[in-house]
Amino acid sequence: MGKGIDFTVFKGSAAGGIVQATSHRDEPTGNQVLVKVTHSGICGTDEHFKHADMALGHEGVGTVEQLGEDVKGLAVGDVVGWGYVHKTCGTCIQCLAGHDNYCTAHVMYGTGNLDQGSFGSHAIWDASWLFKIPAGIAPEDAAPLMCGGATVFTVIDTYNIRPTDRVGVVGVGGLGHLAVQFLSKMGASVAVFSNTDSKRAEALQLGATEFYATKGTTALDIAAPLDHLIVTTSFLPDWSLFLNVMKPMGKIYPLTISGADIVIPTMPLVTRGIRVQGSAVSSRSSQIKMLDFAAAHKIRPIIERFPMTKKGVEEGMAKLREGRVRYRAVLVV
Amino acid sequence: MGKGIDFTVFKGSAAGGIVQATSHRDEPTGNQVLVKVTHSGICGTDEHFKHADMALGHEGVGTVEQLGEDVKGLAVGDVVGWGYVHKTCGTCIQCLAGHDNYCTAHVMYGTGNLDQGSFGSHAIWDASWLFKIPAGIAPEDAAPLMCGGATVFTVIDTYNIRPTDRVGVVGVGGLGHLAVQFLSKMGASVAVFSNTDSKRAEALQLGATEFYATKGTTALDIAAPLDHLIVTTSFLPDWSLFLNVMKPMGKIYPLTISGADIVIPTMPLVTRGIRVQGSAVSSRSSQIKMLDFAAAHKIRPIIERFPMTKKGVEEGMAKLREGRVRYRAVLVV
Repeated sequence: MGKGIDFTVFKGSAAGGIVQATSHRDEPTGNQVLVKVTHSGICGTDEHFKHADMALGHEGVGTVEQLGEDVKGLAVGDVVGWGYVHKTCGTCIQCLAGHDNYCTAHVMYGTGNLDQGSFGSHAIWDASWLFKIPAGIAPEDAAPLMCGGATVFTVIDTYNIRPTDRVGVVGVGGLGHLAVQFLSKMGASVAVFSNTDSKRAEALQLGATEFYATKGTTALDIAAPLDHLIVTTSFLPDWSLFLNVMKPMGKIYPLTISGADIVIPTMPLVTRGIRVQGSAVSSRSSQIKMLDFAAAHKIRPIIERFPMTKKGVEEGMAKLREGRVRYRAVLVV
Repeated sequence: MGKGIDFTVFKGSAAGGIVQATSHRDEPTGNQVLVKVTHSGICGTDEHFKHADMALGHEGVGTVEQLGEDVKGLAVGDVVGWGYVHKTCGTCIQCLAGHDNYCTAHVMYGTGNLDQGSFGSHAIWDASWLFKIPAGIAPEDAAPLMCGGATVFTVIDTYNIRPTDRVGVVGVGGLGHLAVQFLSKMGASVAVFSNTDSKRAEALQLGATEFYATKGTTALDIAAPLDHLIVTTSFLPDWSLFLNVMKPMGKIYPLTISGADIVIPTMPLVTRGIRVQGSAVSSRSSQIKMLDFAAAHKIRPIIERFPMTKKGVEEGMAKLREGRVRYRAVLVV
């Protein structure tokens, strides 16, 4: 490699096809870490950037290969993972309060035409956004936890969802099938809403206490109203349908990344004290708690493997786009 | 009066005119209290029911005239006030948690074709929804606190708005001009948003730290972003305009009663962790704290008086409808 490091990345392109490219970076200095990628989950958000000239992937797992001189707590050979890597200032109110995922100086993923991601051979990150994978979690299982798992877990953690609560999960995909497991293991009652009955058996096996197929439904009739509703679908749901199954003061968390508007009737929201709480990605503290909790309770994603090649990326992303992945695609080097 | 009590009420009517009528009730028994009305605020919500054959008014103040045999803590001659009187079960989770304004068995105001309100001569209420007016607050000043004041105070109280927060108040009317005072007296920084500059001087006098006229504005440029935004207007605001001045994880409270939908772009809500929190009327505990806080800090509404007659009700409601009341109309017997 000589001075600096060349590594492979898989990028989007104007036409939407996957492009294999080579990135070049200086060797890690300061708090930087060179990671050799071994696995990456494929997330719905990658689809949003397939037309961008940027390296894709943000559910990475790999082994530490080289360390900057200031890195503490990591050693060569450690298995580490990362989700969205934020540029955090460390000094704003949000950072100081532990909400570093909402750092005021935060630069949104995909706006910087990134030259590295988790689809590729290597990446160099600041150590502060790398998380040691607990020994009990296989690297391929850890990958989908880094964004999908953390995104739902940070809702539970930040907004104080309780074991005594009734929680609805809309959509059984990469996020939803992990949400069901986290909520079930913390003792909450979990009502799953899915388009058809096709995922009923698996959802119940993962810990759901109830399952409702919503296709064609004009009014939901469920066992008891809900304290929380976590919306994990890639499209926005029919809000009126779900408002009717919320308890007074119920809380709805749309995690959907969509260019559309959220349209909610004012009257039930106001008179029943309903909350709509946006939430994106995960704070670092939630990431750490999530990995510990997943290790302690043997929470594992159900995965489909694809090779970490141009063809593998294309096939995995296509299957996700078609809604046929059960439940998270993982690229394996 | 003979057996039972006849009293005057002012009702809406199909044609929208105010009708003076006589209601008849049995004398108070159990935990009931007969109150002789002395004052009532006029709230925007009354306008929503002017076509209903029901007694109007829900910002009442009066003197206790007669007590049921079980009433404790009230005596004949006490000055009491009431806002929305809820039918609370006392046993559901919401009631037990102190959120009796969201009682599961709650019957919404206006759905029962009420035969009594605070526009009239008397009313009989369950003692649990009557609040003693502190000695320092004049009855005419207490009236607008009972719904308008309590509706904004319960937001501060329930959702833990802090003295160190920056709070926006949209609209300087019956609710807004009280919100500014509550927030100012608790030490918060208060940014007021009003259509034009016409209320600037008064808003600053009431304790606002900043004032912004929004008419024709396409992008707000304010001193610093906001932790909270309390929307007190009778119409829904331009959400995109205000999303841009919220801190990450900022909280928006629409208090507007509107048949329209709340339409908010998904991306900023999700990626910046914005919350939209519906809130309606007040819990009993917030009512009590609000009255104590108003008494302690000499928080008073600015009022315009109208006589408690058919003509007075008509004139007060018309002026409110035209947006010319500064800042709360009060009917005086």
